[in-house]
Amino acid sequence: MTPNVAAAKAALSHLDVEEKEANIRASSRDFFWYSPVLKDRLDHVVADFVVRPRTEAEVIEVLKTCYAHDCPVTTRGAGTGNYGQAMPLAGGCVMHLKHMAEVKAVHPGRVIVEPGCLLKDLDMVCRDTGQEIRMFSSTWATATIGGFIAGGSGGVGSCTWGSLRDLGNIIRLRVVTMEEEPRVLDFRGEELARVSHAYGTNGIITEIEIPLAPAYDWVEMFVACDDFMEAAHFAEQLANEDGILIKLATVFEAPAAFEYFQRVKPHVEPATHLIALMVAPHSMDGFLTFLSRRNDARLIYRNDDHDWDREPGSVFEYGWNHTTLRALKVDPSITYLQVRYGFPDHLRLIEEMQQEFSPEVLQHLEVLKENGKVMFAGLSLVKFSSEARLDEIIRRHEEAGAMIFNPHRYTLEEGGRQTVDDRQLAFKREADPKGLLNPGKMIAWDDPDWRYDRMYSYPKLQAAE
Amino acid sequence: MTPNVAAAKAALSHLDVEEKEANIRASSRDFFWYSPVLKDRLDHVVADFVVRPRTEAEVIEVLKTCYAHDCPVTTRGAGTGNYGQAMPLAGGCVMHLKHMAEVKAVHPGRVIVEPGCLLKDLDMVCRDTGQEIRMFSSTWATATIGGFIAGGSGGVGSCTWGSLRDLGNIIRLRVVTMEEEPRVLDFRGEELARVSHAYGTNGIITEIEIPLAPAYDWVEMFVACDDFMEAAHFAEQLANEDGILIKLATVFEAPAAFEYFQRVKPHVEPATHLIALMVAPHSMDGFLTFLSRRNDARLIYRNDDHDWDREPGSVFEYGWNHTTLRALKVDPSITYLQVRYGFPDHLRLIEEMQQEFSPEVLQHLEVLKENGKVMFAGLSLVKFSSEARLDEIIRRHEEAGAMIFNPHRYTLEEGGRQTVDDRQLAFKREADPKGLLNPGKMIAWDDPDWRYDRMYSYPKLQAAE
Repeated sequence: MTPNVAAAKAALSHLDVEEKEANIRASSRDFFWYSPVLKDRLDHVVADFVVRPRTEAEVIEVLKTCYAHDCPVTTRGAGTGNYGQAMPLAGGCVMHLKHMAEVKAVHPGRVIVEPGCLLKDLDMVCRDTGQEIRMFSSTWATATIGGFIAGGSGGVGSCTWGSLRDLGNIIRLRVVTMEEEPRVLDFRGEELARVSHAYGTNGIITEIEIPLAPAYDWVEMFVACDDFMEAAHFAEQLANEDGILIKLATVFEAPAAFEYFQRVKPHVEPATHLIALMVAPHSMDGFLTFLSRRNDARLIYRNDDHDWDREPGSVFEYGWNHTTLRALKVDPSITYLQVRYGFPDHLRLIEEMQQEFSPEVLQHLEVLKENGKVMFAGLSLVKFSSEARLDEIIRRHEEAGAMIFNPHRYTLEEGGRQTVDDRQLAFKREADPKGLLNPGKMIAWDDPDWRYDRMYSYPKLQAAE
Repeated sequence: MTPNVAAAKAALSHLDVEEKEANIRASSRDFFWYSPVLKDRLDHVVADFVVRPRTEAEVIEVLKTCYAHDCPVTTRGAGTGNYGQAMPLAGGCVMHLKHMAEVKAVHPGRVIVEPGCLLKDLDMVCRDTGQEIRMFSSTWATATIGGFIAGGSGGVGSCTWGSLRDLGNIIRLRVVTMEEEPRVLDFRGEELARVSHAYGTNGIITEIEIPLAPAYDWVEMFVACDDFMEAAHFAEQLANEDGILIKLATVFEAPAAFEYFQRVKPHVEPATHLIALMVAPHSMDGFLTFLSRRNDARLIYRNDDHDWDREPGSVFEYGWNHTTLRALKVDPSITYLQVRYGFPDHLRLIEEMQQEFSPEVLQHLEVLKENGKVMFAGLSLVKFSSEARLDEIIRRHEEAGAMIFNPHRYTLEEGGRQTVDDRQLAFKREADPKGLLNPGKMIAWDDPDWRYDRMYSYPKLQAAE
């Protein structure tokens, strides 16, 4: 099987095909450079061509054509992922879904939308019906819903609704297969796990149906604490208040707020631990009562009533992976981890890791619901020294019982639980028999006997120049 | 202090005062007769007169006048309580708030309403804005919002939003005091605990502001199980699915469904344990996936798609205290308990109590959120034999660690945690210095040294004829 990329490109030339080298390069990248490990390995990756279908029929044409010419296809939205999800490791075609951005229908409790729609634009349309999406990444302003579902796991809103993989957080996905005659399939229920968070390795999502929540003018706040564990307890206990509706509860260990949040800096000390919150306006009385019961926490900012000279912007753009971005801009040696601090050991584990690694690793915690319990996702800020040290830090977390979803790996398995997802693999066998979709991302497809004893290195990864 | 009831009545005769003996009798009662203990003690209780103010100004006039004449005032809504909350133990005036039923304003996330508004009517108005109240008693069709807040604790919706006492589930209460010159106070935050669930013993609620949730056409279902503990696990695990939005999850131990639910009976066996559910329509795909993973549960009814000859009506009218009502109608010897099966011991405690007491006590479980965790309220059906046996059953629950909120007592303390609520008592001292509001319901006011070693007997309780 020898790819004939030029033939595929020629056959698709009547579509919207990008010609400029610089744009092809830009469309071949995501935010993989958050990771020095991935930056080292993927910086040179570039597609041979980029095509931007306008309709599902054009998606089918792209897939059918590339199938005929054995040309790899890596599908992308806005490219705001952090693990090279949308990077064409073996070159070939990048299929960019930016033109497929229509919100097809908004119903009570659910919306039907094309994958290329920006989260922000989707929310704007839903707002007209008093609704909004349940959860979104901190890249709300730039990311697409398709990219979020194919490459993300949760985000702002997950403190109430759990993760994308939880039952009920995706209703239906319409998927096109990569075969001689591509099929169009509607997946619901158990079938959703085949293609959710699969990086487009086994089918291309062309329509999405997800649930909605009521839209509110969320009150966005910063709360300051002098003690780190008090801040973590504050966030947990607030999230456990069943009558107070929240959309975000984030904890930043000091000195992250002072060092990395420029517009927050004038209002905090280096030793200030910060909590970012989004609370429903009709829950503010309850929240302020909750706050008044604590003498360890001070409300220093609320977006609807403050005297800050310079607006800090949306507080959710300080949380999730925007935290890493803000830190990186100030200190390029910063990278991060993704940690699961699971119930009921979450607070103990957090304290243990904080005491062992601070300030080399600064805790950044996101409240998350998992199986009905409040727990934390850690997106810890790591002062990078070497890959060996990073691996050592990861190993210590795992030994302690804090599971790591390694953001310094480009494969599904290594970024997940280091196990094969049989549902995704089985569907890839059926839907992508030539293995042309986003090659190199599913170890189970390439190397079923892989033992995860070292970082996987995709054999067909483009050689750096 | 000698009450001059006749003078009070005469001074209020220009208001809507009930004259008919039968109507005064009816307005002096609630559903206390669920309890054979209370039935024995309260059946003869009757007010001297009933007044129905139309405005807050008239409420103030009633209170001022009764204060001047030392006339007790017991305030009521629809009288759907079960502990004699609204019964005038010492006679005097019953103030019926049925005329004060205006929905004053509906905003995104909250509503402002007068206390006499029926829950049903409140929901109907809110529906026009796509919203509904977060929680309601199973007496939704007949009970008032004021009665629910002054005399209830939670209900349908508490599986998601927790209890009325939780921060955020009441925003504001406007309260009139019982003084020479009644004051009108607006309570928020910590102040709410003074008068919520206080049976109108220390102030009269004239306006209520509560949060709203989005309104959906809830899919109402019955699920059948062959094993009781499997049914309990099913309800808990469903409630732990963060992405599946529910409004009710109730478990009925066999043979309750067969014996007491006439329209369900043709579709179950005596050994069938039943689960009643309300699931948001956009969560049905997730729910059906959840259901398909279990081979121990069968969906036997959904209100939007079924072949039952006779509609069973709203499934929530099988849950909470409607369960007791349905059982009582078939077997007048049935009464009930109110049990707290708290996290994390809830399932162990349920199994222990079920094994010890079934079938004398049949488990009826309501999923409840408490401090962010799924747990159960038990409204167990009890085959009543004697007060001594009932007390013994209660004692065994308490010994095991299953707290009892005794529904066979008419005082706040005995129906609660058998402790004085200092906030309520302190406010009664301030707002009802003569102790005229709903006398006999707050032991701490009448007899501060009471030891709870036996059932409290209010000394001024009207003598039975």
